[in-house]
Amino acid sequence: MDLATLIGLIGTLGAILTAIMMGGSFGIFVNGPGVMIVVGGTLMVVLMKYPLTVAAHAMKAAAKAFLNKSQTPKELIEKCVELSSIARKEGVLGLEQVEIENEFLKRGVMLVVDGSDQDFVRKMLSNDINLTIERHEEGQSIFKAIADVAPAMGMIGTLIGLVQMMSNMSDPKALGPAMAVALLTTLYGAVIANAIASPIADKLALRSKQERMNKSLILEGIAAIQAGLNPRVIEDLLKTYLPVNQREFAKEEKSEAA
Amino acid sequence: MDLATLIGLIGTLGAILTAIMMGGSFGIFVNGPGVMIVVGGTLMVVLMKYPLTVAAHAMKAAAKAFLNKSQTPKELIEKCVELSSIARKEGVLGLEQVEIENEFLKRGVMLVVDGSDQDFVRKMLSNDINLTIERHEEGQSIFKAIADVAPAMGMIGTLIGLVQMMSNMSDPKALGPAMAVALLTTLYGAVIANAIASPIADKLALRSKQERMNKSLILEGIAAIQAGLNPRVIEDLLKTYLPVNQREFAKEEKSEAA
Amino acid sequence: MDLATLIGLIGTLGAILTAIMMGGSFGIFVNGPGVMIVVGGTLMVVLMKYPLTVAAHAMKAAAKAFLNKSQTPKELIEKCVELSSIARKEGVLGLEQVEIENEFLKRGVMLVVDGSDQDFVRKMLSNDINLTIERHEEGQSIFKAIADVAPAMGMIGTLIGLVQMMSNMSDPKALGPAMAVALLTTLYGAVIANAIASPIADKLALRSKQERMNKSLILEGIAAIQAGLNPRVIEDLLKTYLPVNQREFAKEEKSEAA
Amino acid sequence: MDLATLIGLIGTLGAILTAIMMGGSFGIFVNGPGVMIVVGGTLMVVLMKYPLTVAAHAMKAAAKAFLNKSQTPKELIEKCVELSSIARKEGVLGLEQVEIENEFLKRGVMLVVDGSDQDFVRKMLSNDINLTIERHEEGQSIFKAIADVAPAMGMIGTLIGLVQMMSNMSDPKALGPAMAVALLTTLYGAVIANAIASPIADKLALRSKQERMNKSLILEGIAAIQAGLNPRVIEDLLKTYLPVNQREFAKEEKSEAA
Amino acid sequence: MDLATLIGLIGTLGAILTAIMMGGSFGIFVNGPGVMIVVGGTLMVVLMKYPLTVAAHAMKAAAKAFLNKSQTPKELIEKCVELSSIARKEGVLGLEQVEIENEFLKRGVMLVVDGSDQDFVRKMLSNDINLTIERHEEGQSIFKAIADVAPAMGMIGTLIGLVQMMSNMSDPKALGPAMAVALLTTLYGAVIANAIASPIADKLALRSKQERMNKSLILEGIAAIQAGLNPRVIEDLLKTYLPVNQREFAKEEKSEAA
Repeated sequence: MDLATLIGLIGTLGAILTAIMMGGSFGIFVNGPGVMIVVGGTLMVVLMKYPLTVAAHAMKAAAKAFLNKSQTPKELIEKCVELSSIARKEGVLGLEQVEIENEFLKRGVMLVVDGSDQDFVRKMLSNDINLTIERHEEGQSIFKAIADVAPAMGMIGTLIGLVQMMSNMSDPKALGPAMAVALLTTLYGAVIANAIASPIADKLALRSKQERMNKSLILEGIAAIQAGLNPRVIEDLLKTYLPVNQREFAKEEKSEAA
Repeated sequence: MDLATLIGLIGTLGAILTAIMMGGSFGIFVNGPGVMIVVGGTLMVVLMKYPLTVAAHAMKAAAKAFLNKSQTPKELIEKCVELSSIARKEGVLGLEQVEIENEFLKRGVMLVVDGSDQDFVRKMLSNDINLTIERHEEGQSIFKAIADVAPAMGMIGTLIGLVQMMSNMSDPKALGPAMAVALLTTLYGAVIANAIASPIADKLALRSKQERMNKSLILEGIAAIQAGLNPRVIEDLLKTYLPVNQREFAKEEKSEAA
Repeated sequence: MDLATLIGLIGTLGAILTAIMMGGSFGIFVNGPGVMIVVGGTLMVVLMKYPLTVAAHAMKAAAKAFLNKSQTPKELIEKCVELSSIARKEGVLGLEQVEIENEFLKRGVMLVVDGSDQDFVRKMLSNDINLTIERHEEGQSIFKAIADVAPAMGMIGTLIGLVQMMSNMSDPKALGPAMAVALLTTLYGAVIANAIASPIADKLALRSKQERMNKSLILEGIAAIQAGLNPRVIEDLLKTYLPVNQREFAKEEKSEAA
Repeated sequence: MDLATLIGLIGTLGAILTAIMMGGSFGIFVNGPGVMIVVGGTLMVVLMKYPLTVAAHAMKAAAKAFLNKSQTPKELIEKCVELSSIARKEGVLGLEQVEIENEFLKRGVMLVVDGSDQDFVRKMLSNDINLTIERHEEGQSIFKAIADVAPAMGMIGTLIGLVQMMSNMSDPKALGPAMAVALLTTLYGAVIANAIASPIADKLALRSKQERMNKSLILEGIAAIQAGLNPRVIEDLLKTYLPVNQREFAKEEKSEAA
Repeated sequence: MDLATLIGLIGTLGAILTAIMMGGSFGIFVNGPGVMIVVGGTLMVVLMKYPLTVAAHAMKAAAKAFLNKSQTPKELIEKCVELSSIARKEGVLGLEQVEIENEFLKRGVMLVVDGSDQDFVRKMLSNDINLTIERHEEGQSIFKAIADVAPAMGMIGTLIGLVQMMSNMSDPKALGPAMAVALLTTLYGAVIANAIASPIADKLALRSKQERMNKSLILEGIAAIQAGLNPRVIEDLLKTYLPVNQREFAKEEKSEAA
């Protein structure tokens, strides 16, 4: 998991726990049947929604998305410009020897080296982008499903607790604690949804978006290399993937090259 | 129904029942008029929304989606590559003898064997995909309708119970149990929506998505076979429908073939 | 109104009424000012949203959608195949004499008979489809507006009742009945929205979708006839509008014809 | 403001006021700080969302949309047919003398008279349609913002009232009236949102849609005139913008002309 | 921050504070653990959703959007017309000397001066527009995330408070104040979401929309200049980006020029 997410997760749960501790005993916030109905029920419902293999793959993809650091667009642009220079000097076959870290760029370059025609390369790489996105969306959607189901299970738990409490009101003193226990499942559901599952789904969506942008950049770079464009033109073209204030690095290199 | 859905459904209802049992008697959670207004009312409203024939077809399609195991993309790719090899050696007429399990692939191959031109084949198969999806969506939408209507019916039942309770508050001791009964319909609605109807709708959506991807893969495969592409090129093309880590099988075969 | 909708409507209201009756007197559920604020207020707000002429047209369209039974795709396909056979034998002018029940198909055939060119025919019919859909959507949107506004008016009524009740709490015994009355408007709003307006809007949407599919089928049929395609090819093309299990009728006819 | 909207607005507020009056004194529904927080707070938040100039322009556009009666599609079709007859007889220059009420049609005709080429005319008019729609959407979005913000401000007011009430519960008799006052802001927010702002936003959306349809009709008419199409063909083409039952007028004229 | 937003923010918070003050002591609305769980928890969850660098960039972009006054479309049209006159007289190379305030227009002109072909210029500038919008959307989405998370954190805080209160109801007199404290976090969440974060997100969206419209205008202007269109034609073309009543300025200039 990347650091920001980890810090955020610990910080969020910390804020909630501190608020609980400041109000007194922690014990009153623990309730076995409540945990079972919210956590167990949510997992069971998610199992109904997604087959185990999909869930396992999605989890793996999510873990990878958190652990692997994706390259910055800047690094990718520099790599593309370097590749285009080589292709210009030695022809596309010269690209075969170049060491390329990024998997997707590597596959694109291999297609070019194999002499595939431009439409085929574009189609292959576009397909690849679309399918990657679909798999990423599966990962997000599982966490979104948890964020949807947990509060519903919490509400079901609270309703069960309220019905039990109100069916038997012989001891008025027991009402308060019984109501407290009934509310706990709603609290569990809200915490699971808002403090854990929903932020992870959003972080995965952001990662997916960054990777899609990176891959679009690479796709355009590969197309430009295959079209035999001038490295400087390619650089100008790809620079538009950067915020205006980060485009300068390119100009400096250009003036050095000049 | 597929195993994961069945386990999930039993698990969810089990978690809810266990929570009920731990709190005491099961009897207080059963209420005739409540069941009638939520279950009966929901079915009646769904009948208003969908004519019987649509509902029956949709149910059949849903049942089929649960029971039939769809082929994996990997199997389909292998089949397409095999077909393209045959078409290369014996011409497309040679495909007539090949045994094909998948209905949609079979229909596509028949169209090719009949000598239909490429645009016609693509149009026929695309139409087929779109209409299949529309029919699948009908099935999902019925379960989504149940998930929408049940909580509303639950709320209507609770409002009726509250009005009855508060119109006659002569016996304060009866208030609690009356309130408990009033809340039961909200509980029924929440359980039907969140633990049964909504997960089934989502599972159907997932199945529909998988089938659409399979059919897109087949459509592309058929087009490639008809265009007379090299089996290895077809394999590369269709491999993009697989996650990166599952693409290796192809390479191994390739090296064996080499 | 079609039978399923009528049965559903009666069944839903019946379920609600039965639940009310089982709890005691029906009288406590009737409240004049409550009916006025929810029913009257909802109608007035809908009048603000839609001018009278639009509302009247939409109601007429809705009534027609309920009363007229649309033809099945199967019947339309058979008709298109029949027309294409005639057009093949006698030329498109031969179509002038054929009796055609379906208004839209008739208009399309007339355009073909008049010798309009293909793009013009397609444009005319496409425009027609889009505008029909727009008018249908108006009808749906009025019922959707009722389903949106009624619960809001119900909430406003309940808030008014609660404010009145709590401003004057001198007689504790009157609290219960006053609260019951306040809740009634919320109940009215929920019933109007969920048991009447929303299902009707959804049924209209379904009808509109069926009609759009029928018209798309006809549009494709007309285009195929005008292009002079073989009746058997047209049949194959249009059969994709049917579920797989309904396509057989065509094959039987084919074998008989052979 | 058009009559239906005005009647609807008065009727809605009338229904609410009547319900208030039937329950007793009107005075208990007036609360200074409550009005301030809901009305003042809502206006301030809307000011944060939209700069003053945008708000002023939007209000002006909204007022104009209510006051100006837009022409019916029927009138526009008749005008386009008339213009095409003139253009046929006297050439497009003959259109310069024709008096045209509709601003947008006039601008289109002027472009044709100036001899602009077809693509340019279409681009100019399409741009115009898109920008008009964008400005209309601004007007709607301000009323939608009011409908979103007012209930939130009402809830904030109620929460403030509840906190104040519960912090000081020394006099149990004051609880009821204090609670009543706290609920008032929620009532204000609900009335502003559901009975005023939301219906006006919807009416503006409807107007905008009608104007867009009118302008699309004109755009198609201008293109047809410029292409030198036969007036009868143009009539047939534009008639598709009318509901089927309103198309007859054209046929009558045709038979008279014949 | 622009003046309207600042006034709106102060006004909104002022209305809320006044309502609090009129009801008595301000002190009862301050609660340390409540602030911690809502403000702290919200920031932590947002940190989970967005990495720090994204958040920092987005904040900077937001600040810039508030501080920089974007040029009016009118000014941009005048500039484009001026540039096209120069390009007509001195050729596109003459544009190199012209001083251009707007960054995006400047970049476009530089591309034209460099002799890039039309498709390349359009692609570069379109890319630029899309990426600017994406970065703006990141800024909005952070404020939208705050508006989503704060009420959820408020609800979690209230649930914690209620559970603590009801677990220990030995002193009935403490119930009111404890309930008041529990409600405070809901109030904090509502104020942060509705009075601060949500309006800022909407204002940023409006700014982004204005900038996109400006950039579209410039893109069209650049394309027209490169195509060598007549300055008057360019003016007519770009005028469609203005509301009808603002288009007159151009005509006056035209008649002066005549």
